[in-house]
Amino acid sequence: MKVLIPNTIELPLTADVDAVVYDTSADIPDEHRDAEMLVVWGNSASWLQNAAGSLPRLRLVQALASGADAVLNAGFGSEVRICSGRSLHDGPVAEHALALILSAVRRIDRLRDAQREHRWDDAFNQEQAASATRAHHTLDGAHVTIWGFGSIASTLAPLLAALGAQVEGIARTAGHRAGFEVHADADAPALLAQTDVLVSILPATDATADLFDAEVFGALKRGAVFVNVGRGATVDETALIDALESGQLRAAAIDVAKAEPLPASDPLWDTPNLLLTPHVAGNRPVGAADLVDENIARLRAGDELVNQVHP
Amino acid sequence: MKVLIPNTIELPLTADVDAVVYDTSADIPDEHRDAEMLVVWGNSASWLQNAAGSLPRLRLVQALASGADAVLNAGFGSEVRICSGRSLHDGPVAEHALALILSAVRRIDRLRDAQREHRWDDAFNQEQAASATRAHHTLDGAHVTIWGFGSIASTLAPLLAALGAQVEGIARTAGHRAGFEVHADADAPALLAQTDVLVSILPATDATADLFDAEVFGALKRGAVFVNVGRGATVDETALIDALESGQLRAAAIDVAKAEPLPASDPLWDTPNLLLTPHVAGNRPVGAADLVDENIARLRAGDELVNQVHP
Repeated sequence: MKVLIPNTIELPLTADVDAVVYDTSADIPDEHRDAEMLVVWGNSASWLQNAAGSLPRLRLVQALASGADAVLNAGFGSEVRICSGRSLHDGPVAEHALALILSAVRRIDRLRDAQREHRWDDAFNQEQAASATRAHHTLDGAHVTIWGFGSIASTLAPLLAALGAQVEGIARTAGHRAGFEVHADADAPALLAQTDVLVSILPATDATADLFDAEVFGALKRGAVFVNVGRGATVDETALIDALESGQLRAAAIDVAKAEPLPASDPLWDTPNLLLTPHVAGNRPVGAADLVDENIARLRAGDELVNQVHP
Repeated sequence: MKVLIPNTIELPLTADVDAVVYDTSADIPDEHRDAEMLVVWGNSASWLQNAAGSLPRLRLVQALASGADAVLNAGFGSEVRICSGRSLHDGPVAEHALALILSAVRRIDRLRDAQREHRWDDAFNQEQAASATRAHHTLDGAHVTIWGFGSIASTLAPLLAALGAQVEGIARTAGHRAGFEVHADADAPALLAQTDVLVSILPATDATADLFDAEVFGALKRGAVFVNVGRGATVDETALIDALESGQLRAAAIDVAKAEPLPASDPLWDTPNLLLTPHVAGNRPVGAADLVDENIARLRAGDELVNQVHP
């Protein structure tokens, strides 16, 4: 079986296949149009559309990105199965989410700013010692709500719990996942009212567009923290700025914005108590070769594939 | 039994004692000089020296700070037992250490600086995707060495391991602690040569003064990260600055300095790739009332006390 491997990532496969590395910026060479499997990572939409018409024996497209939207929209035949790289990003996104949560709660942004001013921030020390504000400076005992409780949340939640946080989730369906209680969307308002730290890992869909709006921020406990490692499209950014300026949110950290890269004139850059990172949570698949090996073995055995999203 | 409780912290005791709250900025009232136990938190050295001569029936001084140096030096009688608050600080210091480690590895300082310049840092994304530099941007697979492997390290190490790090320790005596391999001081050079992230939780003693010097930084893998939540006295700060300027260290994060508060003219403030926080890791005892209750019960029962440091 011939498998086309992109030159954008190292993939040391162990499967016994004819693995051919291709250039994602060039057409697929004629002699490799008999490939049965195509792995993609960082390929452009036009490259994918071109490939969809060039590989008559293709059986499987394995994306390594978390979402396979670009592949799904490229026009591959209905008989071609498509798998995403969803599970490859659980660890990296959870790690960056934890970095942002700890930075927002322990105010690394504020302390970095003080450092640049050569200022020893004594007020921080007094606030974290004072009984009225002590709880703001730690995850120990904090109620953390994760909205969008899939595989990334299942990796993140135990880390937060190990730091003493009480973690619950919100998802389309209620239940227990990875040992944590997950509530249905409809029960969100009651949960938000007792939430100290709200973390979004929601994807961008019609249902999540501008979900985080003035109503949601207003439903939170006053002085809560908001962290977004999902998608910028889920946030009404004017409402976020208002909530931070009014103190309804005492801090926030976001890795995503509606417009990326964020224009230099955007008001988010200078919003008080907001830490902003340039969409760096993911983009680091972990265990990609194992996933490809696994799906090669399953394809040959006729078993169900991992992360199949089409058909 | 009369127990004197400082007005600097809320201590909801459950023990059946005569708990009297005192003002740490005033003399102990005459009618309370019959106390048998004294709890201290934030008391000045002169207050402690005064108390040492004012409490003839005193049996136990319970400090809530991690180190009880000030109490030990106050001149309490040799029959008075002294206990520290060491175990109360494991969670808080481990939490701040994790925040600094993640900030240094995922370069929250650099990304915060870019934010203030309204700059979307594309180069960061490219560096963390490139095979040569990918491993720099994650704890997953990183070799983390914790120098000073006591109770704080035993709390921190499992958190790092859960993020995929391979954690080992250095301490005065070798062995296994909390499931991690701890090496003796003499074996440090070999361990440093394969260390990606070096974390210090060492106290300030004669033996640790300037321990982190040019030789130690030079023994690390080139491009390692250094994090200090121990004491500033353990670091040769000129050597730290040199190591960061030369790139021998690619990043560092320190919560402590030799001079605190750090003078505005100190070169540490502007050292490249250095994140500096104003000694905020501790100063947040957790579970203080439980410790006091426990030591009251043990004192009454004649059992060994928790965290006893004198005699």
